[in-house]
Amino acid sequence: MSATRYTYLGPEGTFTEAALRTLPEAATRELVPMVSVPAALDAVRNGEAAAALVPIENSVEGGVTATVDELASGEPLMIYREVLLPISFALLVRPGTKLSDVKTVTGHPVAQPQVRNWLRSHLPDAVWESAASNADGARLVQEGRFDAAFAGEFAAATYGLEALVTEIHDAQNAETRFVLVGRPARPAAPTGADKTSVVIWQRDDHPGALLELLQEFAVRGVNLMLLQSRPTGAGIGNYCFAIDAEGHISDRRVGEALMGLKRICPKVRFLGSYPQAGVAAPRRGRRTLRPGTSDAEFVDAAEWLARCQDGRA
Amino acid sequence: MSATRYTYLGPEGTFTEAALRTLPEAATRELVPMVSVPAALDAVRNGEAAAALVPIENSVEGGVTATVDELASGEPLMIYREVLLPISFALLVRPGTKLSDVKTVTGHPVAQPQVRNWLRSHLPDAVWESAASNADGARLVQEGRFDAAFAGEFAAATYGLEALVTEIHDAQNAETRFVLVGRPARPAAPTGADKTSVVIWQRDDHPGALLELLQEFAVRGVNLMLLQSRPTGAGIGNYCFAIDAEGHISDRRVGEALMGLKRICPKVRFLGSYPQAGVAAPRRGRRTLRPGTSDAEFVDAAEWLARCQDGRA
Amino acid sequence: MSATRYTYLGPEGTFTEAALRTLPEAATRELVPMVSVPAALDAVRNGEAAAALVPIENSVEGGVTATVDELASGEPLMIYREVLLPISFALLVRPGTKLSDVKTVTGHPVAQPQVRNWLRSHLPDAVWESAASNADGARLVQEGRFDAAFAGEFAAATYGLEALVTEIHDAQNAETRFVLVGRPARPAAPTGADKTSVVIWQRDDHPGALLELLQEFAVRGVNLMLLQSRPTGAGIGNYCFAIDAEGHISDRRVGEALMGLKRICPKVRFLGSYPQAGVAAPRRGRRTLRPGTSDAEFVDAAEWLARCQDGRA
Amino acid sequence: MSATRYTYLGPEGTFTEAALRTLPEAATRELVPMVSVPAALDAVRNGEAAAALVPIENSVEGGVTATVDELASGEPLMIYREVLLPISFALLVRPGTKLSDVKTVTGHPVAQPQVRNWLRSHLPDAVWESAASNADGARLVQEGRFDAAFAGEFAAATYGLEALVTEIHDAQNAETRFVLVGRPARPAAPTGADKTSVVIWQRDDHPGALLELLQEFAVRGVNLMLLQSRPTGAGIGNYCFAIDAEGHISDRRVGEALMGLKRICPKVRFLGSYPQAGVAAPRRGRRTLRPGTSDAEFVDAAEWLARCQDGRA
Repeated sequence: MSATRYTYLGPEGTFTEAALRTLPEAATRELVPMVSVPAALDAVRNGEAAAALVPIENSVEGGVTATVDELASGEPLMIYREVLLPISFALLVRPGTKLSDVKTVTGHPVAQPQVRNWLRSHLPDAVWESAASNADGARLVQEGRFDAAFAGEFAAATYGLEALVTEIHDAQNAETRFVLVGRPARPAAPTGADKTSVVIWQRDDHPGALLELLQEFAVRGVNLMLLQSRPTGAGIGNYCFAIDAEGHISDRRVGEALMGLKRICPKVRFLGSYPQAGVAAPRRGRRTLRPGTSDAEFVDAAEWLARCQDGRA
Repeated sequence: MSATRYTYLGPEGTFTEAALRTLPEAATRELVPMVSVPAALDAVRNGEAAAALVPIENSVEGGVTATVDELASGEPLMIYREVLLPISFALLVRPGTKLSDVKTVTGHPVAQPQVRNWLRSHLPDAVWESAASNADGARLVQEGRFDAAFAGEFAAATYGLEALVTEIHDAQNAETRFVLVGRPARPAAPTGADKTSVVIWQRDDHPGALLELLQEFAVRGVNLMLLQSRPTGAGIGNYCFAIDAEGHISDRRVGEALMGLKRICPKVRFLGSYPQAGVAAPRRGRRTLRPGTSDAEFVDAAEWLARCQDGRA
Repeated sequence: MSATRYTYLGPEGTFTEAALRTLPEAATRELVPMVSVPAALDAVRNGEAAAALVPIENSVEGGVTATVDELASGEPLMIYREVLLPISFALLVRPGTKLSDVKTVTGHPVAQPQVRNWLRSHLPDAVWESAASNADGARLVQEGRFDAAFAGEFAAATYGLEALVTEIHDAQNAETRFVLVGRPARPAAPTGADKTSVVIWQRDDHPGALLELLQEFAVRGVNLMLLQSRPTGAGIGNYCFAIDAEGHISDRRVGEALMGLKRICPKVRFLGSYPQAGVAAPRRGRRTLRPGTSDAEFVDAAEWLARCQDGRA
Repeated sequence: MSATRYTYLGPEGTFTEAALRTLPEAATRELVPMVSVPAALDAVRNGEAAAALVPIENSVEGGVTATVDELASGEPLMIYREVLLPISFALLVRPGTKLSDVKTVTGHPVAQPQVRNWLRSHLPDAVWESAASNADGARLVQEGRFDAAFAGEFAAATYGLEALVTEIHDAQNAETRFVLVGRPARPAAPTGADKTSVVIWQRDDHPGALLELLQEFAVRGVNLMLLQSRPTGAGIGNYCFAIDAEGHISDRRVGEALMGLKRICPKVRFLGSYPQAGVAAPRRGRRTLRPGTSDAEFVDAAEWLARCQDGRA
């Protein structure tokens, strides 16, 4: 294994690489692009890399199912960090190309719905053809196969292109969430604004019991930040749920909720507790908990129970 | 204090005494009748008695509010046993009295609704006047003040009377539940069919939150056997709740529910865990729990949580 | 039947009479004291009276079970009004009696716990003996059987007594709630601050399902103001629930909740919708409903559903 | 508009076409393949086609987000039918090709994870390259670009190929669910085994309230068959939910649940009520409802409420 190597969903010049470079430790790691999410994660599983950065959710396209499914199955992995990256595209062209010269455009299929309106307004006659990735599209422009590619502005230099237009995004606030994944280890200490990820499976003989699962969180005052259903592979109608809950596994309310799920679900996979991205340091630890759900209140209640059991209440 | 003295709601010859005598240890205790529930309980509080037997609930008349209110306030007490006694009345008369001789009848006010139909059928013209207790009614018959008294058949001997009619009860299955109350101490070990009693108070600023309290039990699969609202004394609309839940405080599901209540209620008073009356020994421990709520499952889940927190899940 | 006759729990001079006289229409009715709650209500059932005023709840003693049980069983009756009366006692004596002359005191058993502390401070050596009612106690003082009686100050005149001390009440805010009961008819129109009373029975085979009943209210945003369990008479462990909910049966959220209960309970008895006592006119109709529970929102949703069913949504 | 034209996700020879041909009316319609789900649905929106058949969910890959998102936004459409198709691949080759001749294989990217294990066992050295669709892969084999393509066996004839191996599928029970979508109209009559689809949006100021939405179904005994979260486009953390519930909009329990959602959600889009696929005719109408949720019980409760409101209960 290489403690200094991080893989990521490549190729170079993608938004994933840009996201990875926002992590301070990236400067001292060997960053290795991989051809797919499974490949990036398998490198972690088999010890060739210490961690992998992969996209997990896009505010326009939704969950990245390859990532969710890889985390839910196979050799266990854990999430240690998340990165939120605003997504805005640049139209990359060979130097000297003018907008009126652009007859063909390319980009990752996921990019298309995010620039569709812009294309309709500014290049109504341009023909779109998909590329394997945004960076790959840039490479194809470099090679002369297309006149322009939608990609991150940071990809221009890599491929000797220039950004003819920047800040292209049909949807306001478009962003992608990436996670840094490693082999299971003790989660980082709580920061006061954390997130806990799990995947839970329902009992087969118990359809429609999603409500029961959610009550395990609700009764302990734990907010859900994301719930995503995924097929279990056992046929239409059989789902597991990938859930992000607010708080850290070392928070008593979160731990008790997880134990509750563990008891009623045939399978629960803990995917990690890690700092919420996008919460400024001063606001960490300032969140108002529902009364009765702080660690101090849990400890008080446990002491009271012990006194009752001893006849000293 | 006297470890050998038990008080009970007197006078002698009441159903409470009969209930007390069903307890094996009653044979070796000094049994002292008291004039009221508060008096019986105060003798325990101030150390003059080791325990007191008092009625807490009647299947016809409902909760015995004096008992519930005494347990909910003042110096803490705990319930160690419950006794269920079928209630059926005998018509006690002076020897030689015939039914046609009975012109006046007496008994405790609570007895009246339980024999009303019988009176209408068999003694439609008899005049009823209440006595302070059923036993007191028997004494008044002995003294010649009334022709007959409704009381337990066992009271006849005490007052030199005979039971002219027995098994009188308008309601089928009429029974009274009594509790044996002592000073706080470690509850008896679980028997496999136990009951846990608490009184809980709601937050003042949180009307209508009874549902929230009950969910603390429901989410852990703890059944409620009794819920009784009592005024807190702060004016109409302010209530506390006396609750009997199935299970023992040493059952993990019960303990966790109690801690949940402790966290969200301004005040919780634990009143004890004790064997359910009326469950035959072979059936103890045979109850089917909701999946995921056994102690073993709680322990497994706690171990799993510890492994997750250590990065070994 | 007599449309002009109102019965009440007598005798004359009780708090019930005082409560009845707060109703404007009492001035034009014949007010008839009855010996018991059942007697007062039976007079309504058999047409001898148009309505009866009876106590239903006391902030110190709790529910008046005779009233609750009478409303829950027998020929149906309905509540049309409620009256809240602050309870404070006067010490009534024969003219000229001084406090130091008082050796014996009387009053209704329910009065005793409400004046116990006062007695301990001011008349520690006085002997208490209960009377059948507060008014009856006053009569016994008039007859010379006791030196003083606790009763409403308004009872003094009736019995030729004087109030030696007034405003006696151990508990702050002590009050009693009375209800005006008549035969079933269309409830009065909503006032903007109403209350709906029902009694509901649980399915025998479904213990512990109280939560389910309460969710019928909660999901429609209907607050509960009172929940009181009463035995069904089928033995310990079998209860029905007398519930007061906020709102009027003609409020859509209340109606839908009642229908929900009707579907899942073997028996529901509607006891009326009537103005909440103690809410000043300007505040009526100003209560903030939970979003989505106003009549207008119910109507909008019904219209939307109809459009969906017609393919016009 | 053309009442006789149905579009589908093309090209010819895909599983979507096979699913469409299972519908009896397909025999009398003009079936037009389209290049994308949006294109197939837009043809319906603008009147060029009466309906479109598109995939909505795959038991291995999960929800088809393009379809879900198209149904959730834009000009309203409704689902009228669903089709379940078992997915099993054939390995299509030019006539005469032997397994040992196969060096290159192609197919839709979604096919790859479903045949990965088979490939590893039977063609470990073959090189995979993705095609735009399974049918397109078959065409490329016909043209000699690849040695073999994974596609439905039914595609062989169209492209002059033969099925060298059939029934290839790594996952047991792999199936895809398709929906027949048209412009909004009155839903078909209930069949006794129906499904209702909606998309619901949460209030912005109300995170973590998914539980509340699900309770609108649960309290009326409506089972959920699918819950899928989708981004609203307003940034990470903002979701809407595509839900399939058991039952028909004309079932009272379903209608009341939908009205409940309509009241508490800022937006609800009704996507149709239609027969559940895969339920044999004799079992239709035989499902055991939760007690209290049948139409008859809803009607009874409504009549009871009307009687209460009229004073005739």
